[in-house]
Amino acid sequence: MTVIEAVRWSPSGDAVRIIDQRLLPGAYVERDLRTVDEVCDAIRTLAVRGAPAIGICGAMGLVAAVRGHAVSTPHDFRQELRRAAARIREARPTAVNLAWGIDRMLRCAESANGSNAELLEKLTGEATAILDEDRAMCEAIGEVGATLLADGARVLTHCNAGALATGGIGTALAPVYIATRRGRRVVVYADETRPLMQGSRLTAWELQRAGIPVTVIADNMAASLMALGAIDIVLVGADRIAANGDVANKIGTYGVAVLAQYHGIPFYVAAPSSTIDVATPTGRDIVIEQRGREEVLHPFGTETAPFGVAVCNPAFDVTPAALVTGIVTDRGVVRGPYDFGAGWGGGSG
Amino acid sequence: MTVIEAVRWSPSGDAVRIIDQRLLPGAYVERDLRTVDEVCDAIRTLAVRGAPAIGICGAMGLVAAVRGHAVSTPHDFRQELRRAAARIREARPTAVNLAWGIDRMLRCAESANGSNAELLEKLTGEATAILDEDRAMCEAIGEVGATLLADGARVLTHCNAGALATGGIGTALAPVYIATRRGRRVVVYADETRPLMQGSRLTAWELQRAGIPVTVIADNMAASLMALGAIDIVLVGADRIAANGDVANKIGTYGVAVLAQYHGIPFYVAAPSSTIDVATPTGRDIVIEQRGREEVLHPFGTETAPFGVAVCNPAFDVTPAALVTGIVTDRGVVRGPYDFGAGWGGGSG
Repeated sequence: MTVIEAVRWSPSGDAVRIIDQRLLPGAYVERDLRTVDEVCDAIRTLAVRGAPAIGICGAMGLVAAVRGHAVSTPHDFRQELRRAAARIREARPTAVNLAWGIDRMLRCAESANGSNAELLEKLTGEATAILDEDRAMCEAIGEVGATLLADGARVLTHCNAGALATGGIGTALAPVYIATRRGRRVVVYADETRPLMQGSRLTAWELQRAGIPVTVIADNMAASLMALGAIDIVLVGADRIAANGDVANKIGTYGVAVLAQYHGIPFYVAAPSSTIDVATPTGRDIVIEQRGREEVLHPFGTETAPFGVAVCNPAFDVTPAALVTGIVTDRGVVRGPYDFGAGWGGGSG
Repeated sequence: MTVIEAVRWSPSGDAVRIIDQRLLPGAYVERDLRTVDEVCDAIRTLAVRGAPAIGICGAMGLVAAVRGHAVSTPHDFRQELRRAAARIREARPTAVNLAWGIDRMLRCAESANGSNAELLEKLTGEATAILDEDRAMCEAIGEVGATLLADGARVLTHCNAGALATGGIGTALAPVYIATRRGRRVVVYADETRPLMQGSRLTAWELQRAGIPVTVIADNMAASLMALGAIDIVLVGADRIAANGDVANKIGTYGVAVLAQYHGIPFYVAAPSSTIDVATPTGRDIVIEQRGREEVLHPFGTETAPFGVAVCNPAFDVTPAALVTGIVTDRGVVRGPYDFGAGWGGGSG
């Protein structure tokens, strides 16, 4: 089983290599990012997406972008580093991980002395550490979550919380990859996830590539499958988890959680402990981003609604903790009642 | 308020005039059908859709198609009538209403004596009666259902059970039209209804044209709206209702019913009494049509899933009677426990 790598160093080590997710599933294109413009453009246009993957890409991209400036004076090199960092940091202001990754790189630079070459080596090490830590985090989530997947398990997932969203094997899909690696037969039903189709475009693509059986369904078909007894467990990711265990995730997640409870199907959220935001008491404190009308009205360029009609397009919803059977973290499965204190959370959000 | 008419006689009376639903919402095109080929083609390619509308179009189209043959001998005219009837009847074999409409026309012909002109007049009257009866049925459902809609009511609907699916003002949307006609302000949230988008393409279009506020949402957003308290009532149509009150309707209806119950929102099914199939004891006896993979994988021509991936595409689902607050029929609102006997049902299915 081969799991794709969404973000990594290019073989020569002087560029960050990403899979261009804008072109999936029609075309598989890897891009090597070497300049601030290339890094910012990739993040801004969702060529690379998924909060962890963006943070990693930003940190590694920063190193790649300043590498050519190491020949200048130490003062100019550090100035260029700060300039590039500021620009990459703003490529997608809402992604906490991006700011976190860039800030970590700047702290690393501040604590470093020595030549440009030594600083560059240190920065390369720090970016690689961010990537490696994320990979380890995904593996840990996968190990923990795999204990929930018996041989023959039929998993429903929503959106893409897979390898394409992280530096490693994903969050919600990590248990699927690990269980499969252990020889268990796991099959996945992927909600296509309107409006942006991350389920059919990305989740189905990466699972198919790994040789894991995956079936794409329209979002409104999940209830039927549950009623037929075709789903054993729901596994989704999270964008943010409040201190009380309420989960903000891709729009549609909440509906799946209600349906799972009605059908007596366990509903698990998989996320790194850093996704737990102890500063947010409950889901009511999470502001839901409203996105543009075109995503709903003109899916992928085709006009499917009358001109000028009103639209709702919330990007996320909040699943109350009471509907969450458990949260699969790198530290183990946490079950309700949830009360995440200062020991939880972290910068990579 | 002007409600569109999906099927009617052309002004000259020699053709059946339909709105070409294949082109909505991008273009409004009326087509006059005058030949068996034109009628069959319109039904087969979904230019006209919705079980009641198809039955009406078949009956009226039969008259239009044989009109030119009235100059031949009575024997030849009746032979042509039977030939045309057989062809139209098969244009879409699964639509019960089509066979029912054609059979009713043939019974009318059998009971008629006299000249070709007299027969033609009788057939025209019968087809017009089928149209008028459907219109009256829609009005009656609307009158009954409007009692459920207070001023300011916010209605969620799924798929299209509106004027475009009938000869009149629809089934699920009829109460919305009647309440609006009475001066009540009613707003509608339309599930886009993947995979074929009847909600965004058709429901949004006909409501917008009637000046009724409508907001399109992706199917997976309904749960969020319910949680926010933005939905007062769910109104959907039905393809078939079993004797015990189980409802077969467009895929996704069942999930909406579960969500409505969870949020304490009344869930009503609007349908002519003829949709009640007393010969089908329960929803388990209803065979669910599985449709092709392309509808899910290539929505409106755009490839949104990897080549060769597996797909589920059931066209309908079954909502158990226990989730149905009431069934709005032309005879009144029926509430559970449902036990439809011989007094219910009818040929127009």
